[in-house]
Amino acid sequence: MPLLFERMAVAGVGLIGGSLALAARRAGLVREVVGHGRSAANLDVALGAGVVDRVEVDPGDAVAGADLVVLAVPVGACAALAERMRPRARAGAVLTDVGSVKAGVVAALERRWQAVGPVVGGHPLAGSEASGAGAARADLFTGRRCILTPTATTPPAAVARMRALWEGVGARVEEMAAEVHDDILARVSHLPHLVAYALVGATAGARTEDGRRVLDYAASGFLDTTRIAASRAELWRDIALANATALAGALAEFRAALERLEHLVAGGDGAGLEEALEDAAAARRALGGRR
Amino acid sequence: MPLLFERMAVAGVGLIGGSLALAARRAGLVREVVGHGRSAANLDVALGAGVVDRVEVDPGDAVAGADLVVLAVPVGACAALAERMRPRARAGAVLTDVGSVKAGVVAALERRWQAVGPVVGGHPLAGSEASGAGAARADLFTGRRCILTPTATTPPAAVARMRALWEGVGARVEEMAAEVHDDILARVSHLPHLVAYALVGATAGARTEDGRRVLDYAASGFLDTTRIAASRAELWRDIALANATALAGALAEFRAALERLEHLVAGGDGAGLEEALEDAAAARRALGGRR
Repeated sequence: MPLLFERMAVAGVGLIGGSLALAARRAGLVREVVGHGRSAANLDVALGAGVVDRVEVDPGDAVAGADLVVLAVPVGACAALAERMRPRARAGAVLTDVGSVKAGVVAALERRWQAVGPVVGGHPLAGSEASGAGAARADLFTGRRCILTPTATTPPAAVARMRALWEGVGARVEEMAAEVHDDILARVSHLPHLVAYALVGATAGARTEDGRRVLDYAASGFLDTTRIAASRAELWRDIALANATALAGALAEFRAALERLEHLVAGGDGAGLEEALEDAAAARRALGGRR
Repeated sequence: MPLLFERMAVAGVGLIGGSLALAARRAGLVREVVGHGRSAANLDVALGAGVVDRVEVDPGDAVAGADLVVLAVPVGACAALAERMRPRARAGAVLTDVGSVKAGVVAALERRWQAVGPVVGGHPLAGSEASGAGAARADLFTGRRCILTPTATTPPAAVARMRALWEGVGARVEEMAAEVHDDILARVSHLPHLVAYALVGATAGARTEDGRRVLDYAASGFLDTTRIAASRAELWRDIALANATALAGALAEFRAALERLEHLVAGGDGAGLEEALEDAAAARRALGGRR
């Protein structure tokens, strides 16, 4: 594949940032990857595993000479990090991110990067509860969606380069407005995370009257339903706060659906309950297994 | 292993009933298994796959001569089925079930079976969204918990035989009061199922303003969290109705935990939100992966 960028600086060499670095280098899409992050131990792992070519602990040193800067840090940290990088950034450098919330983050990045170069918001739908450079995999994005959210002022050439990068690491790229992205993700990702955290939170300390720990009886259903509650709290704190409005809407829809089921149970309406459950079951079966 | 029962009649040759039949025959715990069910097609599958020795479409024919009768049907169908079986049941035959709700079901079975023999309520924690005789597996119960809920009047010898049967197919057997079982299962199983159905129900018909189908963007997090919403609606209708009181308590606890997270998000309380999410994440990580 053709070389797209000479030097890619990746801030946050974790599951997403590290996997992008690995995949882009292996595919020959970038000549060099510079890793940056807060944790020296994680940067050592990244360097040792060949995820990046070199590491820099100072954000300015990390972006010097880079023609692509990837922010793969919690969404709440993106704007301040771009601010610190800006003085040393190479003119024309493309700035992108991989965060699960786009509208507010992209607007904040555009304000900070306007004197430097283009900003292209991005979000690969390839999360997991795993984290750190040790979790990076070159095939993480194979067949996964990656959503780009260009704004009215994003240069089409920059969008095209980012599309080529993500397609080059195997992703299916789609463009949409940041606000549409945030509404969708609130429903298929942010809401389920909050629900999973609440399920564990409600159950974690519970004991029976005779002293048994309720969670000792969790079987595969509970474990699957709450797997994403093992995700890093810092990431999901930032996502929930950054997408609070859309998330509130999704929560209201969920609460209404749950209350409808509760009323059918409380009223002993077996036929109505079975119909509601079967409608949901049919929709879920149509989605199939893992992606 | 020693022979425990001469003839086991299994009503409902699906995932649980079929797996118990397969495992008990292979382990030499029963000499013969008679399968019974509503679906002739499913009974054909069970017979063809060697899950049972023979099938009977009439419940009376199914239990004739059996010294163990296993009800592996939706919990709402158990009492009526026992009623239909009773006239043909062999004196002293042990009646058991595998349902996810125990108190009401066991009481109803004891009333109907008191002139025949002992009733031992049971519940192997080994469900799945799969169903039908084709899903039966001889190793389904290996290492899984099986809870027995004897009452004040259950003969200890009958409990011992059922313990030997479940241990013989690989389960870890534990006894507890039916009410304790129902409180626990409401929290680690029935609540997560209702939540998963509600998550899918709230999202299934949603489209964005520009016409995209929201569920098309569901990735592994949503799929794991809602996997159990593909379960048979009829089973979960019965479970929710039979355990309505404990389930209402579990729902109230869950709603309180979710509202606490919502308030932290709405109030922009990043520190409080991170702490609540991290507490849940730590509890979830301690549970590990699949069981």
